Amino acid sequence: MTEFTDESDRSVLDLGRLAAERALADAEREPSDLTSFHVGNALSGELNAQAGIANALVSRLGIEGVRADRVENTSASGASAFHRGVEAVRGGADTALVVGVEKMSGGETASVTESISRLVHDREYVQGLTLPSFAGIAAAAYLDRYDAPRAALAAVAAKNHRNAIHNRFAQFRKSVTIDEVLASPTVAAPLRLFDCCSITDGAAAVVLSRDGGIRVDGVAGATGTHAVAARPDPLAIESVQTAGERAFARATVDRDDIDVACIHDAFTILELLELEELGFYDPGTAWRATQHGKTAVNGALPVNPGGGLKARGHPLGATGVAQVIELVWQLRGEAAAPRQVPEGPETGLAVNVAGFGNNSVCTVLRR
Amino acid sequence: MTEFTDESDRSVLDLGRLAAERALADAEREPSDLTSFHVGNALSGELNAQAGIANALVSRLGIEGVRADRVENTSASGASAFHRGVEAVRGGADTALVVGVEKMSGGETASVTESISRLVHDREYVQGLTLPSFAGIAAAAYLDRYDAPRAALAAVAAKNHRNAIHNRFAQFRKSVTIDEVLASPTVAAPLRLFDCCSITDGAAAVVLSRDGGIRVDGVAGATGTHAVAARPDPLAIESVQTAGERAFARATVDRDDIDVACIHDAFTILELLELEELGFYDPGTAWRATQHGKTAVNGALPVNPGGGLKARGHPLGATGVAQVIELVWQLRGEAAAPRQVPEGPETGLAVNVAGFGNNSVCTVLRR
Repeated sequence: MTEFTDESDRSVLDLGRLAAERALADAEREPSDLTSFHVGNALSGELNAQAGIANALVSRLGIEGVRADRVENTSASGASAFHRGVEAVRGGADTALVVGVEKMSGGETASVTESISRLVHDREYVQGLTLPSFAGIAAAAYLDRYDAPRAALAAVAAKNHRNAIHNRFAQFRKSVTIDEVLASPTVAAPLRLFDCCSITDGAAAVVLSRDGGIRVDGVAGATGTHAVAARPDPLAIESVQTAGERAFARATVDRDDIDVACIHDAFTILELLELEELGFYDPGTAWRATQHGKTAVNGALPVNPGGGLKARGHPLGATGVAQVIELVWQLRGEAAAPRQVPEGPETGLAVNVAGFGNNSVCTVLRR
Repeated sequence: MTEFTDESDRSVLDLGRLAAERALADAEREPSDLTSFHVGNALSGELNAQAGIANALVSRLGIEGVRADRVENTSASGASAFHRGVEAVRGGADTALVVGVEKMSGGETASVTESISRLVHDREYVQGLTLPSFAGIAAAAYLDRYDAPRAALAAVAAKNHRNAIHNRFAQFRKSVTIDEVLASPTVAAPLRLFDCCSITDGAAAVVLSRDGGIRVDGVAGATGTHAVAARPDPLAIESVQTAGERAFARATVDRDDIDVACIHDAFTILELLELEELGFYDPGTAWRATQHGKTAVNGALPVNPGGGLKARGHPLGATGVAQVIELVWQLRGEAAAPRQVPEGPETGLAVNVAGFGNNSVCTVLRR
């Protein structure tokens, strides 16, 4: 992957190319080995005036002749492209390259915000509801229903920032204390600036083949309701639950076997909700587990050892692939020492979420 | 599919929904039967301020819970989404719905033109080269090299307009004579207005499953060079040749068995070049075959009996799916009488092309 940054001087194509070249080098493959190419990208047309990004990247990489396309699933475009690559290899492709990429800086911030706002169901969009405001509503409901302190959310951010310090690819390599989170400006009450992911530039790539390496044990996607108001409970993210169940139904391992997880923490509240939807914790209990250190690198189930979306950064189309890469490093034992999960983790899970739970993709990897 | 028009009063979501509902009705399936959903769309973010179109359409259709994503491959987005749907069903999905959709009118025409211009390699874009100008260059080279008359190109348009008269879904249901083509305004010499497809709104959808119906005998994609100048010959569209070879390698039938073809005639010259790249005609001979009526509905190999991109219209993301639908109607014997290929065609081929040959997808269907 590339270093995730606030303001890359590389174009969206150059970011994608750099990640692809690094993935090919890591996998000891040549561009000519590739038969299938999949780009996960959310907004290159809107933000970078780059139409047809798959074909432009094929050209930059010198891999003409492959079959290629772009997969778009908003903030889960990376995992959807990965899912597509897995199916291509299972369907007979020899070697697939999946590149997730997003260049969010450099244009007008208004256009980033507007494009992302347009993910919301139009009945809710016209009410002024946005992804941060949905997260704020969910956070308030969670704290109220489970009698959790506001600091419980901040603990997620503090943990993920602590992990990112040791990730040289992370956007924010600095510690953030619970007090600093609580003192940061309000974005959508009760959520504050340090509860929210940022605007990020970056790319991540993986090579998929049938021979050796870390195994894709199960991968599955599921949509949920588009309108959040249509959900029976403001804390329900059914797409995460369904994608998780489907991924485990296909995998050889079960929930209790998972040694490390990458969870889509675009907002701190989401890490807690998703851990509960995936069945790792009962409803209303993930916050206490977090406070007790159970999701820390040396905890019972380490979560987001690479810093998560919160601190590694969230270049939309790259995130799902970056999650897979973090799991691969963890399963190989190659993560930088203080964030390497101890005792040789053998299985990992990633969940990547589009919109506010509109569409989720869950991946289980195994050594 | 929906009626293809110049100016639909439906939104991009409503177009997609209408096509999807018609496909489900035709296949006698309920939304609840679907397990996989794939949207082919090129420019909804840029032209319709519609981000996350796959999730928005899932919601409109009431099929929440399926796995879903959007596949983007510019003007071949429809065929790429179809290819994805085929792989999903081969990979275990029970029933897949593929919707191709594009709403090109209603915004600023400048933004359509600008978005499409951005498909061109940036080294060529800065020279002012566009898709129509590449087509003009190829047309001039073809006429010169093969000593073909200008009317040979016009004959493609006249044939496809003649076919579209009987297609109630076509954008232009009127005859155009060779003289009218030759008298229309110049777009990119020697190509004139009636050599070029138009801006179109429309959607097309198909249901894929493992039981019965028309069989997907082979489908394959391939990229070509992004920069047209990098090709050894201005008349070469290698992606079409490669995609065709790969599709036939997977199919149970061969080139000589094909009874009807849908060819990506965004410009008249492309129908001739693609027929030659696919091996149906030797280089430089498709124009004479067209003049002799061999590609007419009652010819040796009927081409674009539905009117093609030229006269049915070319809503970018819908075209590849509309080609498949035309083949299905032809193989079922359900096309309106004067455009129904006689003697019960049993096999059909479609080719859908992204950019100026950047990426092509070839599909072979069999009864």
